[in-house]
Amino acid sequence: MNDHPSSSSQTPRVNPLWGGRFSAGPAQAMEQINASIDFDKRLYAQDIAGSKAHCAMLVAKEIISRQDGEAISSGLDAIQREIENGTFVFEHALEDIHMNIESRLAERIGDAAGRLHTARSRNDQVATDLRLWLRDAIDSIDASTKDLQRSLLARAEDHVATVMPGFTHLQVAQPVTFGHHIMAYVEMFGRDRERFADCRKRVNVSPLGAGALAGTSFPIDRAMTAKELGFSSACANSMDGVSDRDFVVEFLSGAAICISHMARLAEEIVLWSSDQFGFVSLAEEFTTGSSIMPQKRNPDGAELVRGKSGRVIGALVSLFVAMKALPLTYAKDMQEDKEPLFDSVDSLSLCIQVVTGMIESMTINTDRMAAAAEAGYSTATDLADWLVRSLGLPFREAHGIVGRVVRLAEERGCSLADLPLDDVRQIEPRLSSAAFDVLRVEDAVASRTSFGGTAPERVREAIAAARARYL
Amino acid sequence: MNDHPSSSSQTPRVNPLWGGRFSAGPAQAMEQINASIDFDKRLYAQDIAGSKAHCAMLVAKEIISRQDGEAISSGLDAIQREIENGTFVFEHALEDIHMNIESRLAERIGDAAGRLHTARSRNDQVATDLRLWLRDAIDSIDASTKDLQRSLLARAEDHVATVMPGFTHLQVAQPVTFGHHIMAYVEMFGRDRERFADCRKRVNVSPLGAGALAGTSFPIDRAMTAKELGFSSACANSMDGVSDRDFVVEFLSGAAICISHMARLAEEIVLWSSDQFGFVSLAEEFTTGSSIMPQKRNPDGAELVRGKSGRVIGALVSLFVAMKALPLTYAKDMQEDKEPLFDSVDSLSLCIQVVTGMIESMTINTDRMAAAAEAGYSTATDLADWLVRSLGLPFREAHGIVGRVVRLAEERGCSLADLPLDDVRQIEPRLSSAAFDVLRVEDAVASRTSFGGTAPERVREAIAAARARYL
Amino acid sequence: MNDHPSSSSQTPRVNPLWGGRFSAGPAQAMEQINASIDFDKRLYAQDIAGSKAHCAMLVAKEIISRQDGEAISSGLDAIQREIENGTFVFEHALEDIHMNIESRLAERIGDAAGRLHTARSRNDQVATDLRLWLRDAIDSIDASTKDLQRSLLARAEDHVATVMPGFTHLQVAQPVTFGHHIMAYVEMFGRDRERFADCRKRVNVSPLGAGALAGTSFPIDRAMTAKELGFSSACANSMDGVSDRDFVVEFLSGAAICISHMARLAEEIVLWSSDQFGFVSLAEEFTTGSSIMPQKRNPDGAELVRGKSGRVIGALVSLFVAMKALPLTYAKDMQEDKEPLFDSVDSLSLCIQVVTGMIESMTINTDRMAAAAEAGYSTATDLADWLVRSLGLPFREAHGIVGRVVRLAEERGCSLADLPLDDVRQIEPRLSSAAFDVLRVEDAVASRTSFGGTAPERVREAIAAARARYL
Amino acid sequence: MNDHPSSSSQTPRVNPLWGGRFSAGPAQAMEQINASIDFDKRLYAQDIAGSKAHCAMLVAKEIISRQDGEAISSGLDAIQREIENGTFVFEHALEDIHMNIESRLAERIGDAAGRLHTARSRNDQVATDLRLWLRDAIDSIDASTKDLQRSLLARAEDHVATVMPGFTHLQVAQPVTFGHHIMAYVEMFGRDRERFADCRKRVNVSPLGAGALAGTSFPIDRAMTAKELGFSSACANSMDGVSDRDFVVEFLSGAAICISHMARLAEEIVLWSSDQFGFVSLAEEFTTGSSIMPQKRNPDGAELVRGKSGRVIGALVSLFVAMKALPLTYAKDMQEDKEPLFDSVDSLSLCIQVVTGMIESMTINTDRMAAAAEAGYSTATDLADWLVRSLGLPFREAHGIVGRVVRLAEERGCSLADLPLDDVRQIEPRLSSAAFDVLRVEDAVASRTSFGGTAPERVREAIAAARARYL
Repeated sequence: MNDHPSSSSQTPRVNPLWGGRFSAGPAQAMEQINASIDFDKRLYAQDIAGSKAHCAMLVAKEIISRQDGEAISSGLDAIQREIENGTFVFEHALEDIHMNIESRLAERIGDAAGRLHTARSRNDQVATDLRLWLRDAIDSIDASTKDLQRSLLARAEDHVATVMPGFTHLQVAQPVTFGHHIMAYVEMFGRDRERFADCRKRVNVSPLGAGALAGTSFPIDRAMTAKELGFSSACANSMDGVSDRDFVVEFLSGAAICISHMARLAEEIVLWSSDQFGFVSLAEEFTTGSSIMPQKRNPDGAELVRGKSGRVIGALVSLFVAMKALPLTYAKDMQEDKEPLFDSVDSLSLCIQVVTGMIESMTINTDRMAAAAEAGYSTATDLADWLVRSLGLPFREAHGIVGRVVRLAEERGCSLADLPLDDVRQIEPRLSSAAFDVLRVEDAVASRTSFGGTAPERVREAIAAARARYL
Repeated sequence: MNDHPSSSSQTPRVNPLWGGRFSAGPAQAMEQINASIDFDKRLYAQDIAGSKAHCAMLVAKEIISRQDGEAISSGLDAIQREIENGTFVFEHALEDIHMNIESRLAERIGDAAGRLHTARSRNDQVATDLRLWLRDAIDSIDASTKDLQRSLLARAEDHVATVMPGFTHLQVAQPVTFGHHIMAYVEMFGRDRERFADCRKRVNVSPLGAGALAGTSFPIDRAMTAKELGFSSACANSMDGVSDRDFVVEFLSGAAICISHMARLAEEIVLWSSDQFGFVSLAEEFTTGSSIMPQKRNPDGAELVRGKSGRVIGALVSLFVAMKALPLTYAKDMQEDKEPLFDSVDSLSLCIQVVTGMIESMTINTDRMAAAAEAGYSTATDLADWLVRSLGLPFREAHGIVGRVVRLAEERGCSLADLPLDDVRQIEPRLSSAAFDVLRVEDAVASRTSFGGTAPERVREAIAAARARYL
Repeated sequence: MNDHPSSSSQTPRVNPLWGGRFSAGPAQAMEQINASIDFDKRLYAQDIAGSKAHCAMLVAKEIISRQDGEAISSGLDAIQREIENGTFVFEHALEDIHMNIESRLAERIGDAAGRLHTARSRNDQVATDLRLWLRDAIDSIDASTKDLQRSLLARAEDHVATVMPGFTHLQVAQPVTFGHHIMAYVEMFGRDRERFADCRKRVNVSPLGAGALAGTSFPIDRAMTAKELGFSSACANSMDGVSDRDFVVEFLSGAAICISHMARLAEEIVLWSSDQFGFVSLAEEFTTGSSIMPQKRNPDGAELVRGKSGRVIGALVSLFVAMKALPLTYAKDMQEDKEPLFDSVDSLSLCIQVVTGMIESMTINTDRMAAAAEAGYSTATDLADWLVRSLGLPFREAHGIVGRVVRLAEERGCSLADLPLDDVRQIEPRLSSAAFDVLRVEDAVASRTSFGGTAPERVREAIAAARARYL
Repeated sequence: MNDHPSSSSQTPRVNPLWGGRFSAGPAQAMEQINASIDFDKRLYAQDIAGSKAHCAMLVAKEIISRQDGEAISSGLDAIQREIENGTFVFEHALEDIHMNIESRLAERIGDAAGRLHTARSRNDQVATDLRLWLRDAIDSIDASTKDLQRSLLARAEDHVATVMPGFTHLQVAQPVTFGHHIMAYVEMFGRDRERFADCRKRVNVSPLGAGALAGTSFPIDRAMTAKELGFSSACANSMDGVSDRDFVVEFLSGAAICISHMARLAEEIVLWSSDQFGFVSLAEEFTTGSSIMPQKRNPDGAELVRGKSGRVIGALVSLFVAMKALPLTYAKDMQEDKEPLFDSVDSLSLCIQVVTGMIESMTINTDRMAAAAEAGYSTATDLADWLVRSLGLPFREAHGIVGRVVRLAEERGCSLADLPLDDVRQIEPRLSSAAFDVLRVEDAVASRTSFGGTAPERVREAIAAARARYL
């Protein structure tokens, strides 16, 4: 004899599509937590495309009649117009986009609507919709990342020979060119695009026809629907088909890496536009003012890009946690895949635009860059290399000698070039005035001609190669 | 000679509140990334309360006139009514809730509105608003967590003596009572409430008057505004006041722990309501059906609670990342604090309601629980303890003997109680029939009378103590 | 006039390799936080291989003499033997594996050792080492994941027709075969291997010759060293070369997804080996006992695999955070890449072995599975499909009818097949006894012949296709 | 008829402590994943203390004899000496610290050892050990954080009036003092200490006596062991006692917040010690050199602290994931709590030392700070405030006027103070020369006398208050 609690006083209506055996509707909080229509309505076009492909296949395989098929197909077209016109009424009680559309289809075409769901489940349907949506999102992100690369390449080309300090540990290390620096980001975004392309291969597989979990006894043709929807193939295991969300997690990983690259660039823009660096001036369109300090011109755009990297990394974590240790097959936890995905695609897309705009519109303060490149004994390595090349010293010994020369210059508060030769020869008698020729930053930059190096001729080649590869 | 890019063709209007030195408005993508009004309008009541307190203090300290103060205060009241009526028009171009309200105030009362921002910055203003909002959220969450505890206590009380298997490693370990099991969650939610209360102490400190970052030269009274707004004190360092978001991170940590507790309970509900366990039947209001499988009654509510633990943990991570290594003081990255906070408060609140509803309405299948408690040799420990108590064996030796007895029962495919005494005595000759008395699960449960143990008398005391402590 | 603190009393020795301009050694805590030798010594073989390739190139390009090159090369070989013999003494004061080896080389061969670091920096050196190490790790993980797939395929083949309940929401949904269920994991691990292969392309690029950040003025041949070390190419931008850690992050993402798959399988093993499910019995080698409960046989192996998914996800997060918003180029923060990588590779590798062992050695309790497949009205969908096929009802209407039939069976406490036909016809008069033929679980399974479905013939094909594709 | 795989060829020995019913030992990979002795041996002192308290209570309650109790207690003391001498041999086959010690105790004292585990399980034992360990760790971290505050206070006191630019958005905002800036961190670390103290309350509760999960039938006295071990109370529910890891998660949250504060400070140190800022010079003990660039002095200490924030945040995530949705009670996944905890305590402790050392030993370049404070129109707010105070303008109007003045100065490339009065009066005729008096940074700083503001007199008070509160 069991313990029955008194029945709830809440009695919302029973769901018309699956409520056959239910006597009570969901509690209000339950309806609120369960309904996904507020965010999954964004999948309406994919849902309709998937349903039309499914319907065409059902007709082709004579599972439903041609007449019913036509009614369904034109009914779905009409619903798509309603949604795009803004006349469609989304209902919470119908939970999700699938039920909202199917229910409206029944209103429009009657009984035939009830045949659409033959040999299909929401489990394969939602996976299909989400893959179609993400495939489009990847293509759109690829295009805008390519635009960003194009903008970076244009700025790099203008600044192939613009000298600036190269940093390690945020300490001046060796002079580089601004073009070379910018090209590092072209490489990063190139890898991002490759990663998205690799991910897209795994996104572009059709779960449609996996049914609830086990496949179906109707003689469906999964290859046909897959082809119709532009998928490269149908997934090989129905249970995997409805319970796999790898494609979302992999995309979010790629998105998190991509926005991390933008966060690095944003950090540099924040630094470069500070009073202390002064390397660039952001266009006013990409800065904002202060409510209290009239002089401020804040790099809010860059800061928001930097901050939003947290949002995408957080989204990735949220899905890893949601999927953790779920037994097969579909579980409702997986509904938590959509909001982090949608938000991450939106955030990433917006950040790409903002970064592109900042890059295109910012002013490069070449004088400040050049002056900074002179500071910090940035050519000390060149002096060490001279000792190796001209005197045949082992590099380690040369490194030690130059270390002592730098220490002397620091004590004197002067640059390496300004040290009296006699004093320098106290440290290493074989140092000649010729050694000091390598200390000019332009020469230092021009000398680094190794493949991938900062010499302007190398950077020009790198730009040409990147254009060929990426644009 | 620097490199000026050609000016952008986009020319939205200049912000009227900080645009004094700006000639161009923000690019469209910039406006989109920069504006927070879509989500921070949720702070309107706190923003107005903060402004009114600030205004009253400015009047009291004779920084603005009483007349201006009254105009501001009644203007703000009118704006609050507009917002609550739904007649207020929020504008993206005005970025955030602060500017939207101040701008509307200027429309309503003219020049006096411009005096409100004396000795204040958006930096201290937004921190004040968010702390006020979070303080209310904590109080609301505390109240609903207490309700959840109350529901758990009621179910525990009804099932003080309902025997079920206790599990470790999801293997049947020792019999316990359902009441005892449920009381474990009362303890967890009790710790959650304590943690939120501790967090609240650090939330409830006023940054108002910190200004942009450095304080102000106007003779303000920060203690007065702090008191008016119910803060326990004013923060001690203005730079910390505008750059600190610990209070959000700490709250999100507490929220993540709390929802993790609910995820554990949700996991148990999913298990218990499976066909294999069958320990509980969820009320129909908290289950949903399948679009394809007519027999299904899925524990979607529990699954969504479990899945949403990922969302809150992800929110916590997103803020840790956003705040990582930001130099002092305010940076726009911090605007990324609000959406994860709002979403986490909403998710947590909704989950608490859903869990409360599931607990209150589920049917406890006491027969299934009792039957399961008999399985899995759950009283083997009791037999070992008997050997210690009755024969004076060291526990380790007793453990080894009972292990061999269990192995025999497994080979025979029978329960411990059903083993022939003679066969058992082959293992340990001193075992008498009295030993088998301890193998009844009810006796085993009743015997565990240590403090915090599962004996019904102890559980009854625990319930009374928890009521006194938590309700 | 500045503020000089009194000098520290700690005076450890100055680093012999870069200490030219330093007068004081690092403080003790600094040495402790700075030294990476405790963990990066694991890179010794890669470091030596990289140095030998670099040395051979320096000789080929006549940057160092053949004689010096030979001394260096044989010295490095000797050091490798010392390390592998356990006679090499690692020193904290020498910070890292690079300095430890170079310093020892100087002891062994004198001045020539100092020529090895010509045209190289630790920045490109460590990136080279880590890429080589990770490439090997990926190859090893790929091989063991393939072994795991092989084991899964073997079990699947044995159980192509073993009926078990298929679950959605952990509720019995439709019957499937154990072979089909297991094949879902073969697909998951197949995607993991593809992802690792895609990642490997981006790992296998040589940063050697990027120098500190800007390339070098020595006439090096980066293609030569890249080829020698088996890299597919040299990276195109030196600044990117030393500051990129995408390859680690991408690998950790893939590793986190892979271990998440194992966590799902582990969760199922925990469920299946519970007393309530009883679907499998783990081999004793993969279970452990209890210190107190003599009867326990806990699935610790599965639990640890499940738990370790947190470790790898945490490692991924730690690197995202460490890399967040670092300006170019190298920063010491990047040293935090190694421990999470090493630990994740170790954890993943160990978990693959444990899962493989559990799968190979567990006993499948086919009777328990079959009995469970009968429960939960698992063939209700089949009845609905019959109504569609035989009576031409729209699926939605059929779904509703079967829902009512299930409700009747629940009220009666019987199976669908046991309902009297007359009573069922009260619900739908056209239901005939033929309808009940589809309710047998073996028939239901056999009927799901769609591509990717659970029908044994389909599973057999899927196994063959997977063998061809993956093994 | 079930499917029995052929038995594994691996046959390690059966665990002597729980192996009563086992015929085979664990597979090698299983032993490797299962054993925790490599890291949990760190708990030896806590384990022994817990065992001694348990033993004393068993004697007091006459559950074991006084003689046995004495043998156990002195045996444990001897084992502690062995461990501390380094003569104790830890064995993997014995899994963990508890079994290693108990097994050794049996070697030393024979049968009596077997009585120690009466009325205890490893489940309550390990929770007890870990709580004792963490309690000590918190106390140690509190003490070193206090030392860090002391060092910060000393530097703040020396620089109460040292002017530097205050930043928002990394743009110069308003002048502040270095002392005031540093005091922001004293507040942050103060909150950290409060958080750890609050966490400690929840750590300091005794699970000992919870048994495996259900309590025990032996007449134990949990209050006695709790008191003996310094716990404030015994936990109220045995199932919660063995399955709760909140105390670790909460600690890791606090640790992650604390190290995030250090990461912010580290970021500032990296910025401040850059050539561009030049605000501080790190002591050589806290910098390192470059293997290639002889001039470099890199802030590696600060970078590593910054990077290690990722490690602690990652540890927190790893535990959230490991604990996610675990059903009650103990599961082996929980063994994954120790490594992230130990590593985080070590990382946090080391970072506190390194930050303390950097702060104490760095040189403050007051000239560079003062010069930077003059730049960036940092006193524009003061001019706006003057317009409010002297001319009675609304702040918004004043803000607009000063915005135009700044724009004029930018066009002229001069400071505000250097603008000709006549030109300024074109913007606002009422501006007098008196207005320009507020533009001096020292005056601006001195004027911000609001509570918590940057005026030296306020900072002095803040230092005194902090000393009273925190030291």
